[in-house]
Amino acid sequence: MEMLNIVKIGGSIANNEQKLTPFLNEFVTLDHPKLLVHGGGSAASKLCENLDIPIRMVDGRRITDEPALDVAVMVYAGLINKNIVARLQGIDCNAIGLSGADLNIIPAQKRNHPSINYGFVGDISADSIDSYFIRRLLEEQAVPVFSAITHDNNGQLLNTNADTIASVLAIAMSSSYSCKLTYCFEKNGVLEDRHDEKSWIPKIDRQDYADLQKRKIISEGMIPKLETAFDALQNGVKYAYIKHADELNSTIGTELTL
Amino acid sequence: MEMLNIVKIGGSIANNEQKLTPFLNEFVTLDHPKLLVHGGGSAASKLCENLDIPIRMVDGRRITDEPALDVAVMVYAGLINKNIVARLQGIDCNAIGLSGADLNIIPAQKRNHPSINYGFVGDISADSIDSYFIRRLLEEQAVPVFSAITHDNNGQLLNTNADTIASVLAIAMSSSYSCKLTYCFEKNGVLEDRHDEKSWIPKIDRQDYADLQKRKIISEGMIPKLETAFDALQNGVKYAYIKHADELNSTIGTELTL
Repeated sequence: MEMLNIVKIGGSIANNEQKLTPFLNEFVTLDHPKLLVHGGGSAASKLCENLDIPIRMVDGRRITDEPALDVAVMVYAGLINKNIVARLQGIDCNAIGLSGADLNIIPAQKRNHPSINYGFVGDISADSIDSYFIRRLLEEQAVPVFSAITHDNNGQLLNTNADTIASVLAIAMSSSYSCKLTYCFEKNGVLEDRHDEKSWIPKIDRQDYADLQKRKIISEGMIPKLETAFDALQNGVKYAYIKHADELNSTIGTELTL
Repeated sequence: MEMLNIVKIGGSIANNEQKLTPFLNEFVTLDHPKLLVHGGGSAASKLCENLDIPIRMVDGRRITDEPALDVAVMVYAGLINKNIVARLQGIDCNAIGLSGADLNIIPAQKRNHPSINYGFVGDISADSIDSYFIRRLLEEQAVPVFSAITHDNNGQLLNTNADTIASVLAIAMSSSYSCKLTYCFEKNGVLEDRHDEKSWIPKIDRQDYADLQKRKIISEGMIPKLETAFDALQNGVKYAYIKHADELNSTIGTELTL
């Protein structure tokens, strides 16, 4: 099967011109077919602050009420997504920005939690992804760029975790492609010592992951990346990496294996 | 040639749930192929106000500086566009939201005016539109929904007039389809007496237009619609209408002819 590159960047790269430019220059050199998924957390928080929209938390979890959803849609699906698309077009990469509502590619379920009302948060699964148009776009040499906005198929937009979107898209595409999932962030991979960029661990399997967690080497923010990456590997995705956004084409980084 | 419906709605409809819902219910009943173009002016002005971004005017013309462009991208390409897409998906219409940067469909020229610096405003022409992907999407039964954001092909997003986008798209699509361009707004058409909704003029040609202008029957806001509609008719578009957003399928409205 043909290889498909699925790359995810977080908001701290997507929102920062100094970091975004070198990343996109690396990204365009990857072989086609490829697709990009981006987050955007910090810019949305900043806009909420500027608009005096309080960030609502329940039991330590962030709640997406209606004003917070509008901000997420504006920042993720609007500002960040279209800026990345224009940048890619400027370096001869035929990008198309998509949310999960577009072409009904990523329908989601509004989260139904027994005690916490998370608000407009969408949970997704690989089964419900409609990969037809992604394949058609890739066949036409287009490069889909996904923001982490989905919909409930009943007119309501929803906010979804970008790591999960990347993983679930990779699983869904695995029936047609040999998928390589790469989470890019600002470190050289999973670090043995978080203050030493040279301490990246080349390979981590499930057992190593459990050991690293016991030793408290794995930071809070890393857990969803590792969990969704292992989930992807268990469900048909061929390769999974955690890498620095500038090192997409180098051997620096952590490979995850089952 | 097959008929293509190109419908444009202004921000006052796109931003107002009470007006948007009946419009979209009408829109979905139109025969395929069809596409939608939307504006969004008032919501962007409101967000600028809430963010204390001053609205800059030079010689009575609005200037799109960087903060104003960011707001336009967030509101037009993000909030309004994705909301319309989700709404359409909710009523079984396979919508895809696009800006002019996506798939490089609408490249623009940053406006170069001898005395006024309009900022990030993009001027467009039918020649530069790449209609290939629009045709492919229409053939796949998808319904493109365009926001009025374009790009300069060099990484920069630009703000473009939505009436112009609708007209220029219609001209570009006229080589493949028999195009019907409809501007929807909140009146029953061009009114003989602006206080009487029943006074809509069924047909206006260039000569009538000149006469109506002399008699000061044509309001400020109507001029760009009429100008771009006549321009469309002169450049291959088959039909052009100005109608009420609720009367898309009725005989009420003004037809423009050369």
